[in-house]
Amino acid sequence: MAYFDAASAAPLHPVARQALLASLDDGWADPARLYREGRKARMLLDAAREAAAEAVGCRADEMVFTPSGTRAVHTGVAGALAGRRRTGRHLIVSAVEHSSVLHSAEVFEAAGGTVDRVAVGRGGAVDAAGYSAALRADTALAVLQSANHEVGTVQPVAEVAGICRAAGVPLLVDAAQSLGWGPVEGDWSLLTASAHKWGGPSGVGLLVVRKGVRFAAQGPVDERESGRAAGFENIPAIVAAVASLRAVRAEADQEAVRLRELTARIRTRVPELVPDVEVVGDARRRLPGIVTFSCLYVDGEALLHELDRAGFSVSSGSSCTSSTLTPSHVLRAMGVLSEGNVRVSLPMGVAEADVERFLDVLPGAVASVREKLGAPAPATRVRAAELVVDSLGKRCPIPVIELAKVIGEVPVGGTVRVLSDDEAARLDIPAWCEMRGQEYLGEEPAERGTAYLVRRLG
Amino acid sequence: MAYFDAASAAPLHPVARQALLASLDDGWADPARLYREGRKARMLLDAAREAAAEAVGCRADEMVFTPSGTRAVHTGVAGALAGRRRTGRHLIVSAVEHSSVLHSAEVFEAAGGTVDRVAVGRGGAVDAAGYSAALRADTALAVLQSANHEVGTVQPVAEVAGICRAAGVPLLVDAAQSLGWGPVEGDWSLLTASAHKWGGPSGVGLLVVRKGVRFAAQGPVDERESGRAAGFENIPAIVAAVASLRAVRAEADQEAVRLRELTARIRTRVPELVPDVEVVGDARRRLPGIVTFSCLYVDGEALLHELDRAGFSVSSGSSCTSSTLTPSHVLRAMGVLSEGNVRVSLPMGVAEADVERFLDVLPGAVASVREKLGAPAPATRVRAAELVVDSLGKRCPIPVIELAKVIGEVPVGGTVRVLSDDEAARLDIPAWCEMRGQEYLGEEPAERGTAYLVRRLG
Repeated sequence: MAYFDAASAAPLHPVARQALLASLDDGWADPARLYREGRKARMLLDAAREAAAEAVGCRADEMVFTPSGTRAVHTGVAGALAGRRRTGRHLIVSAVEHSSVLHSAEVFEAAGGTVDRVAVGRGGAVDAAGYSAALRADTALAVLQSANHEVGTVQPVAEVAGICRAAGVPLLVDAAQSLGWGPVEGDWSLLTASAHKWGGPSGVGLLVVRKGVRFAAQGPVDERESGRAAGFENIPAIVAAVASLRAVRAEADQEAVRLRELTARIRTRVPELVPDVEVVGDARRRLPGIVTFSCLYVDGEALLHELDRAGFSVSSGSSCTSSTLTPSHVLRAMGVLSEGNVRVSLPMGVAEADVERFLDVLPGAVASVREKLGAPAPATRVRAAELVVDSLGKRCPIPVIELAKVIGEVPVGGTVRVLSDDEAARLDIPAWCEMRGQEYLGEEPAERGTAYLVRRLG
Repeated sequence: MAYFDAASAAPLHPVARQALLASLDDGWADPARLYREGRKARMLLDAAREAAAEAVGCRADEMVFTPSGTRAVHTGVAGALAGRRRTGRHLIVSAVEHSSVLHSAEVFEAAGGTVDRVAVGRGGAVDAAGYSAALRADTALAVLQSANHEVGTVQPVAEVAGICRAAGVPLLVDAAQSLGWGPVEGDWSLLTASAHKWGGPSGVGLLVVRKGVRFAAQGPVDERESGRAAGFENIPAIVAAVASLRAVRAEADQEAVRLRELTARIRTRVPELVPDVEVVGDARRRLPGIVTFSCLYVDGEALLHELDRAGFSVSSGSSCTSSTLTPSHVLRAMGVLSEGNVRVSLPMGVAEADVERFLDVLPGAVASVREKLGAPAPATRVRAAELVVDSLGKRCPIPVIELAKVIGEVPVGGTVRVLSDDEAARLDIPAWCEMRGQEYLGEEPAERGTAYLVRRLG
């Protein structure tokens, strides 16, 4: 079995396990108490806070521990927005943030706030100028991830932080995917992270609020964690999380070189081994361990199932695997193909042999799924006149498969009209056109669903 | 060393430790994923949910896991209030709830809601009729603890639940202190609990919302835990928490008898061994392991320090030990003495010899603190005329000590006027009068602080 979904959760690091076991005996009591057991717990918590602050590059009194990275984001965004309520009620996020940021933005909008979502390029990165342009006199907060969780693209955080700082607007950096690799550069104001991404246990997030940043924690709080994270501190898990962060940091530079080579291998070889594949995400500015690609004519869930049977655990931003049945907002914002999407995120220490075995197995797995779906063989073409394809009631990737099957039947310059009521078609048909060198003419409302118009160019 | 603060946090149960270790290997992955590691995590989570639901007496789909008992309360109260917003914006709580409930109530009040705080008797129990009287047509929610965390008094939950049910108002029961001893009886609608109170690890709370209860989770949520507790599930801790709950429940009936006898011994013997002590909390309807008493002329923090030096870890609701420097709201609501307050909460499995040793050590510890503070010897009396005692700028228990020193100087029927600017005097002077058989005449504003008037009766 090979686990290639470290961007979702990493297995517990051996150092984290050791630290957890050791601190179960000394870290269970209430650190607010004055007696011996309480003082021991307090010492562990204080030491962990110092060490975490050093790894992040902040002061210990700027760091609080939360029950998860998601809670750190929710608390951080809400607190920063409320702290600057007098300045205004405008929030800037990128279009490819983690759902915890986007959910926070939706709640803020529902309460009367205004949100700008900065677009990304085809590689998944924001342009710092996009943040510049979005800044307003009433902007209370800007949020940007250090690197994208689905495609691994690294964001220009230091540049955006500089722009925000010059405008007097705090920037919250969601560092969930990158903090294990190193501190976040630039003059950011708030930072969030999640321990189980770097081999720490579940149940620990970090929220850093720089001194001088206006912050008003929302909802009921108590006296714990500077009034920013209510509830009994989970000290053994906090100690383990910080121990793990230090351990992975010690290996990070060396391991980054190794993983970067392995993901480069996947980036290069998958398109050679598998026809009709688009590798997505920035080829240079990217995290060491993440590589993402999409396969035409493939149902993402079916492909994950094939790969799981072959012993590989990967994830997918495709519509069919998430519980919400909508395509990944990240891939949509990038304007790339979402169907048959696979994210490979290698854990630190992954065996090279497992990556090679994955490259051996992948072509057969994709071919098997395509065969079941009746996908067209690569380079197959037939001829005919203008056509309407009725894909109503059919889910991704069927509309694209049907489009691909008939495009050869219209003469060059002729059009195919695909009728579909699957939301994913809106993304996948244009993406298919771009990959196949056909012209996407746009969409129009149909009697049922939407008509997508494609002109055959070759 | 003897740890007598189980009501704050219990040491990790051996069964919890075993379960935690075992599930670190199988429970770290994302249970929402379809691959092998995700399925294993999901199975552990599902099994834990079934077992927890069985222990609570609810359906598995009514139970969600939260990051702490405090978060369970915050989420439960806010969600239930929002779910019944159309009914009205009135909340009923008891005056002796845990701070997490009172903080939730304060946030609700700040947002325009109305809160009724039902009074308790001198034993710390609410009268069910108090809830009956507080119910209104616009009552959205009532909250009542199953038992009090500071004095151990068991509340008439089943009776209050019946009253609320008849009125169509949901009752949320905070079962943090009692769930390890057994399920909560009665027809309640929501329930919260905290695993580290029964020997589970930190980081796990329970929130139960019965089917049919209107509930609207507040703030950003995600797809986890039925949209009621955002963030990556802490599965190893959840598994350990539930394993521990089952283990303590298996021993609960037998251990309850043993602890009840030990706390009864403390209740009886402390007033015999130590002069000027008031044992507080209901003598009959109480939790097995908690006993609380207050010592006149004693500074609570100094006494905890003495006891800690003697090897005993206990807590205190006295003003001087909490970080907020206000006397316990529980003791205040009960109208009992708060100074020199000590809560002994015995962990399951406590050694009888440790309890006996505590009874040996306590009289000397109290005497030592009293000597340092210059407290009057018991039964010392002198005589004089009407008096003013200026205790301005002096903190508890000095005003009461000074009152006690001069009461004998006024003739029977004469008065002492104590000037104090310490908030605790408002509670402690009347309580002293009751204990000493003197008449408390009331308070009035003074040039500085407040004047408390006491008439000597004997």
